[in-house]
Amino acid sequence: MIDTTFSRVDMGSVAEEVLREELPDYRVVRYTVPGIKDLPGAARRLIDMGCDGIITLGWVGASQVDKYSYIAMSVGLVMLSVLTGKVIVDVTVHEDESQDPRELKEIAINRARAHAENLVKLLTGGLDALRPWAGQGVRQGRPSVGPL
Amino acid sequence: MIDTTFSRVDMGSVAEEVLREELPDYRVVRYTVPGIKDLPGAARRLIDMGCDGIITLGWVGASQVDKYSYIAMSVGLVMLSVLTGKVIVDVTVHEDESQDPRELKEIAINRARAHAENLVKLLTGGLDALRPWAGQGVRQGRPSVGPL
Amino acid sequence: MIDTTFSRVDMGSVAEEVLREELPDYRVVRYTVPGIKDLPGAARRLIDMGCDGIITLGWVGASQVDKYSYIAMSVGLVMLSVLTGKVIVDVTVHEDESQDPRELKEIAINRARAHAENLVKLLTGGLDALRPWAGQGVRQGRPSVGPL
Amino acid sequence: MIDTTFSRVDMGSVAEEVLREELPDYRVVRYTVPGIKDLPGAARRLIDMGCDGIITLGWVGASQVDKYSYIAMSVGLVMLSVLTGKVIVDVTVHEDESQDPRELKEIAINRARAHAENLVKLLTGGLDALRPWAGQGVRQGRPSVGPL
Amino acid sequence: MIDTTFSRVDMGSVAEEVLREELPDYRVVRYTVPGIKDLPGAARRLIDMGCDGIITLGWVGASQVDKYSYIAMSVGLVMLSVLTGKVIVDVTVHEDESQDPRELKEIAINRARAHAENLVKLLTGGLDALRPWAGQGVRQGRPSVGPL
Repeated sequence: MIDTTFSRVDMGSVAEEVLREELPDYRVVRYTVPGIKDLPGAARRLIDMGCDGIITLGWVGASQVDKYSYIAMSVGLVMLSVLTGKVIVDVTVHEDESQDPRELKEIAINRARAHAENLVKLLTGGLDALRPWAGQGVRQGRPSVGPL
Repeated sequence: MIDTTFSRVDMGSVAEEVLREELPDYRVVRYTVPGIKDLPGAARRLIDMGCDGIITLGWVGASQVDKYSYIAMSVGLVMLSVLTGKVIVDVTVHEDESQDPRELKEIAINRARAHAENLVKLLTGGLDALRPWAGQGVRQGRPSVGPL
Repeated sequence: MIDTTFSRVDMGSVAEEVLREELPDYRVVRYTVPGIKDLPGAARRLIDMGCDGIITLGWVGASQVDKYSYIAMSVGLVMLSVLTGKVIVDVTVHEDESQDPRELKEIAINRARAHAENLVKLLTGGLDALRPWAGQGVRQGRPSVGPL
Repeated sequence: MIDTTFSRVDMGSVAEEVLREELPDYRVVRYTVPGIKDLPGAARRLIDMGCDGIITLGWVGASQVDKYSYIAMSVGLVMLSVLTGKVIVDVTVHEDESQDPRELKEIAINRARAHAENLVKLLTGGLDALRPWAGQGVRQGRPSVGPL
Repeated sequence: MIDTTFSRVDMGSVAEEVLREELPDYRVVRYTVPGIKDLPGAARRLIDMGCDGIITLGWVGASQVDKYSYIAMSVGLVMLSVLTGKVIVDVTVHEDESQDPRELKEIAINRARAHAENLVKLLTGGLDALRPWAGQGVRQGRPSVGPL
């Protein structure tokens, strides 16, 4: 579990609660770094410490440069998953997803919780764990849109 | 075979049917993950399990951030194919390819089927398997445009 | 030599002819894949088969998503050349280079031929093979623009 | 510690002062390179020399090409952190963050100092070092925005 | 030293002259390739031949696709420097830096010379070689802008 000081919502505590409750036999490690470009390296260090799965909780600013940083972070996490084969759930909230601070906070909390549950399922449920929702238009942080 | 819960069409079942029918001597494995950025790591895990070829079925949202995620996913899958030399057929449908839900669903189903057939040919037919269509302007999910 | 079924011009046959004629002592292998994102993995497989040099012939659509796929393909081929040190000539024609189908076809044919000749020179002529044209504003597929 | 000649503010001296003061038992090494695309390779050389942590201080121009260079630099530093697991704090100031040279200089100095302090905490404080600020909307170089 | 046939100015000869003059004890190798996407692979081959440092001289077209190629080239060269730790000075001139051909040519020549001198300093002067210019707003090819 990795979160940032840049984030405006304490998503780390939300995810931590889910993981501790639903993975009682696992050791849950929390690591806080400054911002999103620090996540891939931190994830690598946690994997080196023996972690089986990672959830990163990133907060992305609204400017174009923030979006370019988002590309670099995403490429880094994808690269790490390609090199190690570890389950890495990469969660981000974008500052410009909503103009309403209350709504934005709600999105962040719901998304952190929903993806922590995804991590639990992926780690404990095997390849079929998410099969019931395949192609179901599931969204995290906002209501699901459903299948066409 | 890897599909997502984010997708709004169950492309996984379409591809699965093609692969089971046309590759009776292969073991077809299906793996469902949350979204497109989870595909490269999942593909790596399937390769580690011994898979000879991979088809990923991604659904890409309409926003600019979704397109940046598409870049990260694409770079990750390309990197995996470069590192392992495995056949990886990377299929995506973009939410903004059509405004008509019925048409979008049809595109998704046809594209999943057409690319599953490509995977079969690439795995069983050698370097020449797709030669008859070289330079023929073949499209998947929509009518082919033909050669100039 | 790798070409695609997505392409609207049979650039593979053009390049094949040049390579067979100018490299009589080489074994020329042709491999056809669906689209541009399949090129880096296919190139890796040809290198594993023992190829000394690769020419990829890609056709890039006109949409923004096609251009993002172009980035992923380019990064993949560059990465492969960095990892293996092999000569990889990455040729692409973009659907929006010309509105005139006849001109577009001509560009594709000329570019495939010119770059196949580049591959021959790079493989057989050593580091100096292209020196006479250094800084000469050479273009492939269109007339060269010349030096300033 | 790596800085550039391209930068318009001597951020290197600011960071150097913090590191020497707060890490008296460490050997602080400073390396100056031309511009931001030289940072990842230089960081690799410092890691090979035995450095435990790196802070890079980049200055990014205002043009679109400068932003593309920023992507390449960011991907390179993220890749290095993924490959080595080392703490790499990647600091950048963008020429277009402010029209006022005095403000821009102030941002650069404050950001270099704040991130040098982050590096100190990450190197000496373990996984919990930044926990008190998790989700607190911390910014470097400008006032923090605080949590929602 | 690697230059291209795509370039409209013979920057290779400019850099070669500087390197031969200022590095009399080094063996200077020149390698000409078609375009910018060929630079990373060529750099890898020169490193495999034993080169201690590389300068690449790229010419980037004015279109958006040329800029995407610039990203791929930049990521490739950064990746190579990360993987090998070699000094790689990546020089580019962009066709749209000036509308005046004479000025553009002057930029290219000055930039090639200035960066060849940077390579000399980085190879022979150790970590401190560029320290006097740290944060001084140095530019290559155009007048330096100076510190704030």
